[in-house]
Amino acid sequence: MTDYRAMWADLGLNLEAHNGLLAVLSKAYGDLFLSQPNRPEGMKYFDFVMSEVHGLRIKELVDAKAQGRKIVGSYCAFVPEELILAVDGISVGLCTGADFATDLVDQVLPRNTCSLIKSAFGFKLGKVCPYVEACDMVVGENTCDGKKKAYEILRQFIPNLYVIDLPQVKSEAGKALMRAEYRRFAAQLEQLSGRKLEATKLQAAVATVNEKRAALKRLAALRRADPVPISGLDSLLISQISFYDDPVRFTDAVTSLCQELEQRVARSEGVFRAGHPRIIVSGCPMAVPNWKVPAIVESSGAVIVGEEGCVGERSTRWLTSGTGRGVEEIIDLLAERYLQIDCAVFTPNPSRPEYVREITHQRKADGVIHYTIQFCQPYQMEAGPVTQQLEDASIPTLRIDTDYSQEDAGQIRTRVEAFVERLRG
Amino acid sequence: MTDYRAMWADLGLNLEAHNGLLAVLSKAYGDLFLSQPNRPEGMKYFDFVMSEVHGLRIKELVDAKAQGRKIVGSYCAFVPEELILAVDGISVGLCTGADFATDLVDQVLPRNTCSLIKSAFGFKLGKVCPYVEACDMVVGENTCDGKKKAYEILRQFIPNLYVIDLPQVKSEAGKALMRAEYRRFAAQLEQLSGRKLEATKLQAAVATVNEKRAALKRLAALRRADPVPISGLDSLLISQISFYDDPVRFTDAVTSLCQELEQRVARSEGVFRAGHPRIIVSGCPMAVPNWKVPAIVESSGAVIVGEEGCVGERSTRWLTSGTGRGVEEIIDLLAERYLQIDCAVFTPNPSRPEYVREITHQRKADGVIHYTIQFCQPYQMEAGPVTQQLEDASIPTLRIDTDYSQEDAGQIRTRVEAFVERLRG
Repeated sequence: MTDYRAMWADLGLNLEAHNGLLAVLSKAYGDLFLSQPNRPEGMKYFDFVMSEVHGLRIKELVDAKAQGRKIVGSYCAFVPEELILAVDGISVGLCTGADFATDLVDQVLPRNTCSLIKSAFGFKLGKVCPYVEACDMVVGENTCDGKKKAYEILRQFIPNLYVIDLPQVKSEAGKALMRAEYRRFAAQLEQLSGRKLEATKLQAAVATVNEKRAALKRLAALRRADPVPISGLDSLLISQISFYDDPVRFTDAVTSLCQELEQRVARSEGVFRAGHPRIIVSGCPMAVPNWKVPAIVESSGAVIVGEEGCVGERSTRWLTSGTGRGVEEIIDLLAERYLQIDCAVFTPNPSRPEYVREITHQRKADGVIHYTIQFCQPYQMEAGPVTQQLEDASIPTLRIDTDYSQEDAGQIRTRVEAFVERLRG
Repeated sequence: MTDYRAMWADLGLNLEAHNGLLAVLSKAYGDLFLSQPNRPEGMKYFDFVMSEVHGLRIKELVDAKAQGRKIVGSYCAFVPEELILAVDGISVGLCTGADFATDLVDQVLPRNTCSLIKSAFGFKLGKVCPYVEACDMVVGENTCDGKKKAYEILRQFIPNLYVIDLPQVKSEAGKALMRAEYRRFAAQLEQLSGRKLEATKLQAAVATVNEKRAALKRLAALRRADPVPISGLDSLLISQISFYDDPVRFTDAVTSLCQELEQRVARSEGVFRAGHPRIIVSGCPMAVPNWKVPAIVESSGAVIVGEEGCVGERSTRWLTSGTGRGVEEIIDLLAERYLQIDCAVFTPNPSRPEYVREITHQRKADGVIHYTIQFCQPYQMEAGPVTQQLEDASIPTLRIDTDYSQEDAGQIRTRVEAFVERLRG
């Protein structure tokens, strides 16, 4: 193994704490991912990426910085990576999937803040996230109250923080705000990079990201097959990696994997036997290494065949359409594309339950787990109406409201097992 | 006492539950308000209003409806009552200050929803709020995530619900959204009332509401005096009543009270002796009958000399300035006025801590209680930075995070008593 200690020290990480984190991550990855039966060969690439998540990928970022490229970190699917790529920047999703430095976090955030926000603070305050330390700019966004207000506090610790404003309603005024904010962000990126946005560069970036999303849509569609050719854990992992891997290399790896899965489907080969209970998970995003619920589901007699979440299909199911000629026109197309995302922060948000129903039928799923992170008000508020609509359509549902701790893992397992029994019945 | 049972039954109230509510309210009012020493004579008007809060005032609304006037209810200081008055409507704040029908509420809202939102649902589902039942239109607004998403659910129970969208940032785009939304609301009011908005009517409505706010500002300024001529409980009550009383009659009553208080100040006469510890309360709104914290404070050796809250100075400290000539121009002035409100839903929100500091000095307050309702993320997120800024300016602070139950009343009293001791020291 390459020794990255000097690089981590240069980035200002707390090496001891960071070693502890890597040890836990590596152990969890081995237990949950590498132990799965019948994994596709194509997962080897993603195993490698994960094994180098704080190593080789960080070295690539550091090397790119040395060549003058800018690293832009973000916490949300509303940050348009196309604009970042078009100024030759690198877009990386930042660490928000595990509790860390909770004693420091509790000093600056209210107790009832969601785990995802607390985690973002914990990785920064505990100095264990090489991504955030490598960033030339970190981009927040006014989505939920929690994040919106937390960015005001995070600015103390991340001075190079830039925040994109977002509308709450997809009205004409909301669209206008989105377009204006994406243009303001584009200008900020031009300033950061010292490069002028060019239409050809931006068109190429749109194509790159569209190809990435198309590959993920192809992968999602393959999960219709019974037996399903890939586990939910592996599918989630790929979505998680999509946020920080090189997009072209990542697309190639997903494409190769899809070719393999197509052969599996043709041979009726899967990760579980045909007829294994099938579940859609819908709700809050699951960032690395928040694998708790899918790990429980897939070791409780069911398989996940779709993630309606921002780390999942919600952030990839729309491509940017049309071919704008000028920079401003393309930015408007991007704003239009991103405003389709049916995050629960919008009111109303009818397309989300519609899509859950659509993929439940399309993937031949037997039931839906509505997953929320405690204190995430927007998704908790949607939980009732969304599950009610599903139950009214005779789709069994289970609501899980949890955090990043393992304290409730046993209780969740008991509830999931009972739910799977209901699906079998 | 007049018998209003027929009127309540006509409105669809649950008479038994409603009787129970009135009995509790009446008892609490007697214990907390009527028992106060040295109350100004002018409070008699407000005592009468409170004694008829579900009686005479409702009869006025019902009579007005019979004459074709429209009743418009709301839950927030962002709903511009000037527009309602200008179409000859009546603006009333709706009940949100006590737990009610919690078993029904828990079926439709997440457990960790703030008490204020739960209360709005409880009064509706429990059929004990004659105001909401008398409304021709109920107006919500996209402020916090909790309310924004709860209105989607409330619409099931209140079909005549109209929601005003709000920006999250006070940018040019935010101002444009505010202007557009107020114009849309104006058009809705025209449709509801069958009346066309006229500039002269609107100017008169602006003057009426400005006069009301000016009277409340005059009252607030009188709280600079030591001894203070009016208690915090009575001042809060007046703010609470400002949301549903007739504005002209209310302004007259506040003006008379101010004249009396000016005489008191001239005589150095107060509700407590000079030198009594003085406190500013800042944070979440306190709707009728949410008197828990002020009642504890004022029976623990201190007096409240200012409420930086939406039921308090945050909703009244700005008047609408300028004299627009046309309807649209006046609506723009209103949008400008209301967008000054420094609710924690905005990011950033610097004027709020500035104003708390300003009135702390102006009212010669010894300390600040930062008050939040549990699960109110925006104010909970501001609690840390706001109290930090105050402590940095050598202003002692106490953070209270609570709900509408009385379960923590003993614990809060202990903490408040210790805080008052600190202020004395």
